[in-house]
Amino acid sequence: MRGIKDRVAILGMGCTKFGERWESSAADLMVEAAQEAYADAGIAPKDIQAAWVGTASSFRTGQPLAEALKLDYVPITRVENACATATDAFRNACYAVAAGVYDMVLALGVEKLKDSGYSGLAIPEAPGSDVAPPTPPPAQFAMTATRYFHHYGIPFEEGKRTLAKIAAKNHHNGTLNPKAHFQREVSVEQVVKAPMVAWPLGLFDCCGVSDGAAAAIITTPEIARSLRPDPVLVKALGLAVGAFGILRSDWDFVHFPETVRASRAAYQEAGISDPRQELDLAMVHDCFTITELIIYEDLGFSPRGQASRDVASGAFTLEGDLPVNTDGGLKCFGHPVGASGIRMMYEVYQQLQGRAGPRQLRKADLGLTHNLGGRPGSFTCSVAILGR
Amino acid sequence: MRGIKDRVAILGMGCTKFGERWESSAADLMVEAAQEAYADAGIAPKDIQAAWVGTASSFRTGQPLAEALKLDYVPITRVENACATATDAFRNACYAVAAGVYDMVLALGVEKLKDSGYSGLAIPEAPGSDVAPPTPPPAQFAMTATRYFHHYGIPFEEGKRTLAKIAAKNHHNGTLNPKAHFQREVSVEQVVKAPMVAWPLGLFDCCGVSDGAAAAIITTPEIARSLRPDPVLVKALGLAVGAFGILRSDWDFVHFPETVRASRAAYQEAGISDPRQELDLAMVHDCFTITELIIYEDLGFSPRGQASRDVASGAFTLEGDLPVNTDGGLKCFGHPVGASGIRMMYEVYQQLQGRAGPRQLRKADLGLTHNLGGRPGSFTCSVAILGR
Repeated sequence: MRGIKDRVAILGMGCTKFGERWESSAADLMVEAAQEAYADAGIAPKDIQAAWVGTASSFRTGQPLAEALKLDYVPITRVENACATATDAFRNACYAVAAGVYDMVLALGVEKLKDSGYSGLAIPEAPGSDVAPPTPPPAQFAMTATRYFHHYGIPFEEGKRTLAKIAAKNHHNGTLNPKAHFQREVSVEQVVKAPMVAWPLGLFDCCGVSDGAAAAIITTPEIARSLRPDPVLVKALGLAVGAFGILRSDWDFVHFPETVRASRAAYQEAGISDPRQELDLAMVHDCFTITELIIYEDLGFSPRGQASRDVASGAFTLEGDLPVNTDGGLKCFGHPVGASGIRMMYEVYQQLQGRAGPRQLRKADLGLTHNLGGRPGSFTCSVAILGR
Repeated sequence: MRGIKDRVAILGMGCTKFGERWESSAADLMVEAAQEAYADAGIAPKDIQAAWVGTASSFRTGQPLAEALKLDYVPITRVENACATATDAFRNACYAVAAGVYDMVLALGVEKLKDSGYSGLAIPEAPGSDVAPPTPPPAQFAMTATRYFHHYGIPFEEGKRTLAKIAAKNHHNGTLNPKAHFQREVSVEQVVKAPMVAWPLGLFDCCGVSDGAAAAIITTPEIARSLRPDPVLVKALGLAVGAFGILRSDWDFVHFPETVRASRAAYQEAGISDPRQELDLAMVHDCFTITELIIYEDLGFSPRGQASRDVASGAFTLEGDLPVNTDGGLKCFGHPVGASGIRMMYEVYQQLQGRAGPRQLRKADLGLTHNLGGRPGSFTCSVAILGR
């Protein structure tokens, strides 16, 4: 067995503006993301030998991608894996290239949520609902927050302000990103005082419900280097699925073991021993502010129970030592489920190439993306590490 | 680019009885298929490093497989691709092994249809319905039959009897298969006189709607040979998706170009120049008898317009020169959408190992499986070739 490290490269990427795209169909969004990726890669549609499309609920089969992009007779696989859908489509595309079966493929994630039953919070069914309990996601993660505060003895007001700082950080990053769904600053006070959605999570603790698509052209490192000076290499791909739900006996309810497993597998594959020191940026699955807080610990960025201290010190802001969700995150870039994982890679890709505009980090050589889907105890967690 | 030929092996397989499995959940069926595959491979569940689960509509995400099989923290991808779902799950699993990322994985297909909205024919929505026109599948393929008869000047009674011979053949094969949904002989007269479903297709021209699951353990040829004397090797995997539907200008409506493309790619990968001579058996997507007739031509088994002659001569029966659907086919083994592709491989696998019981062919060294999903003009077609 050998890892994926340095065996596949990203030759080009594209991403639509996320948001309320009432005027655009899923097909329109796929074309928009793919065209940008083709142009960025300097290739033509006919160069695509195979494709993987990730969508949680916008359509079935790979055929709608064939139809939208006129990829006639091309092999197309549809991957669906809750909030890890896009990253897992990307992962399978990478394996096919690493196997040498194809040397130029497309991985694309897409979701139309604003004109679906998922356009609001008070919905009976979310994508992946077959495995979700009736409890809607805000309530599930709210319980994680109260448990976390209790477990570590964090007073409510203090915990609430810590979460608010995460929201304010991601909102600030979103103001620097013209493709983000939400591009307005919010203050910590505004977040704290916002209407409650599921106590202690208020309106600004919850990510957006958005439409969008993102695409990646994947090839071999050799081909990539022959076509552009700054391709991005895949350093690791980790995926872990929890089997036992809340019946899991070894679980303290204040971390997500799937993230620990997926990230440790990825760190090993990438040869990373100290992620806090070695990573330059991370895009993580901040579906709720409490999720991002816990992810800091699960990914090894902060010691268990001490992420609040790092939030207080600004460690994860654009000026911090490990900027997280530099593009606004799910919170502000938005969360079209099947597109989010590749959207995260799009930001890492641009940061690594020095093309992130006003969000550009001084040092960006190694970045991580992280998705978490499903419900606590039975998460599907994907981690990807990209580098130069 | 290099093909998949001889780079991955099937170490073990399992398949449930197909049929009306009212007493079994999708989880039960997955356990049943996986347990047989584990036992056949001589491995334990802990040996599984990653898994791919194919289901069209029974559930979302890979998590239900993790839960059913207690594959805790294992990477699991859910693949969905209409009637090619199982074969495409298998294909992605093969690429991951060929890439060397894993050396022991599980590919499993499953569907529970009998307690779903798909339990009868008169349904508004079939799996993959987002891309299907309101016309239900029997009507779509009925139009293919009338067009085929017209195009080649075949009188109705003659065409109807040709189709009936295909049904009678598959029903006969089903009687030899204890796992088949339907295990009764039907005569050509019975098929011809059966109630019409969509003219000219009668009841016995249509495949069953069934519950079932099938599983494969995939590894490297080296590991497989070290663990059993008779592993089966993957010789080729082809997939082609049509983009243009009936707007396609180069289409005569009497063949399925996606099958031609997917099979020719697979023949090239496997090094097959004359499939009729070189293949020993084939499991093809006989959702309707007319589909099997046309597939004979699309796969190159019969010249265009002349498959009827080969049906008349008995070429595709168990005693013929190229037996097709030796296990009863979709017609009699049944068609739990997400399971069918791996069910087909299960038959080829057993035939290649000389374990097919009363259906055993004298010579079985190279076999093909074929799936077709979606609607005419925009099919998703998968082809797999397995050998020794």
